[in-house]
Amino acid sequence: MESTDPAARRLRGAVIVTGSEVLAGRVIDKNGPYVSQQFADRGIETAGIIQVGDRREDMLAALGQASSWGVDVIATSGGLGPTADDLTLEVVAEYAGRPLELHEGMREAVWAKVEKVRERFPDIDVESLRRTSLKQSMQPAGATPLPPVGTAPGSLVPPSEGAEGPLVVVLPGPPRELQPMWEDAVAREPLAGLLAQAIPFEERMLRLVGLPESDLAAALSEFEAGGLELDRMEITTCMRSGEIEIVTRYDAEDEALYGRFDAAIRDRYGSRLYSDDGSHVEDVVRRMLLERGWTIGLAESCTGGLVAAKLIDAPGASSFVRGGVVAYDNAVKQSALGVPAEMLDTYGAVSQEVAEAMAQGVLAAVGSDCGLAITGVAGPDGGTEEKPVGTVWFAAVVPGVPPRARKVWIPGDRASVRDRSVTYALHVLRGALEEV
Amino acid sequence: MESTDPAARRLRGAVIVTGSEVLAGRVIDKNGPYVSQQFADRGIETAGIIQVGDRREDMLAALGQASSWGVDVIATSGGLGPTADDLTLEVVAEYAGRPLELHEGMREAVWAKVEKVRERFPDIDVESLRRTSLKQSMQPAGATPLPPVGTAPGSLVPPSEGAEGPLVVVLPGPPRELQPMWEDAVAREPLAGLLAQAIPFEERMLRLVGLPESDLAAALSEFEAGGLELDRMEITTCMRSGEIEIVTRYDAEDEALYGRFDAAIRDRYGSRLYSDDGSHVEDVVRRMLLERGWTIGLAESCTGGLVAAKLIDAPGASSFVRGGVVAYDNAVKQSALGVPAEMLDTYGAVSQEVAEAMAQGVLAAVGSDCGLAITGVAGPDGGTEEKPVGTVWFAAVVPGVPPRARKVWIPGDRASVRDRSVTYALHVLRGALEEV
Repeated sequence: MESTDPAARRLRGAVIVTGSEVLAGRVIDKNGPYVSQQFADRGIETAGIIQVGDRREDMLAALGQASSWGVDVIATSGGLGPTADDLTLEVVAEYAGRPLELHEGMREAVWAKVEKVRERFPDIDVESLRRTSLKQSMQPAGATPLPPVGTAPGSLVPPSEGAEGPLVVVLPGPPRELQPMWEDAVAREPLAGLLAQAIPFEERMLRLVGLPESDLAAALSEFEAGGLELDRMEITTCMRSGEIEIVTRYDAEDEALYGRFDAAIRDRYGSRLYSDDGSHVEDVVRRMLLERGWTIGLAESCTGGLVAAKLIDAPGASSFVRGGVVAYDNAVKQSALGVPAEMLDTYGAVSQEVAEAMAQGVLAAVGSDCGLAITGVAGPDGGTEEKPVGTVWFAAVVPGVPPRARKVWIPGDRASVRDRSVTYALHVLRGALEEV
Repeated sequence: MESTDPAARRLRGAVIVTGSEVLAGRVIDKNGPYVSQQFADRGIETAGIIQVGDRREDMLAALGQASSWGVDVIATSGGLGPTADDLTLEVVAEYAGRPLELHEGMREAVWAKVEKVRERFPDIDVESLRRTSLKQSMQPAGATPLPPVGTAPGSLVPPSEGAEGPLVVVLPGPPRELQPMWEDAVAREPLAGLLAQAIPFEERMLRLVGLPESDLAAALSEFEAGGLELDRMEITTCMRSGEIEIVTRYDAEDEALYGRFDAAIRDRYGSRLYSDDGSHVEDVVRRMLLERGWTIGLAESCTGGLVAAKLIDAPGASSFVRGGVVAYDNAVKQSALGVPAEMLDTYGAVSQEVAEAMAQGVLAAVGSDCGLAITGVAGPDGGTEEKPVGTVWFAAVVPGVPPRARKVWIPGDRASVRDRSVTYALHVLRGALEEV
């Protein structure tokens, strides 16, 4: 690996996430993945993420562990609050051999933030606020303070004078505070100088649908056997909601190699490769609907509103989503979507006929140009030999082409069946829109 | 702390999660939280969770780190697959000083699993399968093998003969394999013997709604000042989707203390405390509807189907959910829910009048006994001075009592507004059902 900048090298980092809710599994940590992705974007490879409780010895041990991975930078999240069990800055100060001292600038910054809280709660005890703000105004000697987003400042803490060791980036726990503070920190020394030494990775993502992961594994082996040097790149593949994501990281000099890999995938999988810019199927469908100036209505049984909710996730959904009908009960399929009772009796609710009638029916129910219907057996009960749990019918109706219906069988529990049904439904709609 | 069993003591554990998708933040790890919760249920306190890549040195360092926390047991997840970057058992064998050797029983168990895969893919290369199954048939000398759930066996690996150190429980990565294997492992020696030494915690959860976290913090301080020894228990509080969870862990001998704490919370918060058995508001609402033999219909605007989907999450939803209308567009509020156009013009879509009309309208649209409506400004656009982004109106209609409508203002981004709206909507319905 070569670079024009002689100082440039591959940096490594670690993340330490504190907090007992995360450790007990009651809260899903978002900070580890966020910082890890930020590291990657800036050419820092994440060696590991450590989740640890608010216990002094465990936190010190975690800092030691991260150092033993040989990292250049450690980011910590959490433990900057006003209460006695918020220990992070104290422990990092001890680890770096830089005792805490009062920082006048931070004292003022924290007090300004606290004043705002006081405006909203005028009967709050001022003396306790003053004590609180004093604890949060301490910084390790020689560290670079990071101004508070909430009420807690962070800190860039270098190793002690003359010593080797990682730079510690101390960040708050709430993601809405951590993320802006990180964005602020990357422009400040000594973090900015460290990042300038990093060699950024290139990172590309491909999303495919309609193939088993084992087939992709076989394809990668064949490409390598055919002379493609895939071992020069870091390729990870991951099944998610019935799709496969291929994420590839490589050095800039390997751009041509990546191009050959990308071409080989396209050659093998054709339109099953549907995204190369990070977009999800809901983004693709949204774009296609907006281009055509069409609106969509949803007719959902087993997915119970999840497809509508997915399309409405994005701002501006009102320009292409009219609404939908959650027709969980067969009586609602009849009354709100006009599915004939005889059709339900003859074919059953989970059938091509009913899926198509639901997709047609929602056009009138919500006044949309296109209709998308989902009806399936999500389980755990209701399966039969002919239609086992996991059987789902999809139908899409778009102007100018015949209705498109598809049946799939989805393994797994109720949550898996519903989750994948959302993805597959959107792919059936995508297929119909592509025909136009 | 005392116990009748002299050997009983507080055990500590750690979890090591391997895999680059987790480390890169592309996949949310479920195994760390699962094992951590299992540890807690069995009296093991989790010291930390380490997420690490598939790199030999980093994994060895992580095992060293977990040991340095002074733990009795380490669970690992992932890295048991057939490919060269699946290193976990090899690294654990090295860590424990127990070289890998072929285990005849596991060879047969793995081969039996592989035969089944072969039935489904008859044209697969048998020789490569044989090699694969051989790699997965290796076990550290003296370890207790854990039979495969998928194709990969796990292992209980004790420290080397005569040495001190934690027992390592080696588990596979996919949660649907890891969880049954853990259930199997707890009954096997030497894990079963270790667990028999643990003192189980008591753990209770309370869920509250309609108060700020700061008020609860003040309440806890007051209780302590009043003589309640809260420091004998581990109390964590957590805001989630607009609710507050209080999780308390304590030793069995402190049952009476917990009883006094529970009574103090009830005394202060009354019906804002709505769950003491782990149930969520959707569970409470389901129970109330089933008791009354009533069905519900949903009329959703900004939540776009999420409330319906939440109620349909649980199996058996067909006995109390008829369906719903996602009325994202005002035209759908008129056509499918019968909201008068003049009402929309006069009061706007986000108003008490329209919310109540939507809740009434869905009764006819889906033929349900009860109706629940949500209409709000989720943002980022569409806010006005009078109705800023985050303004949401809810209305519930249940037989025999007047309609119940509530307005809230929810801070945060579009996702937060929608997420909390789902919870608040269900609480408005709960309130209406309680009046009956």
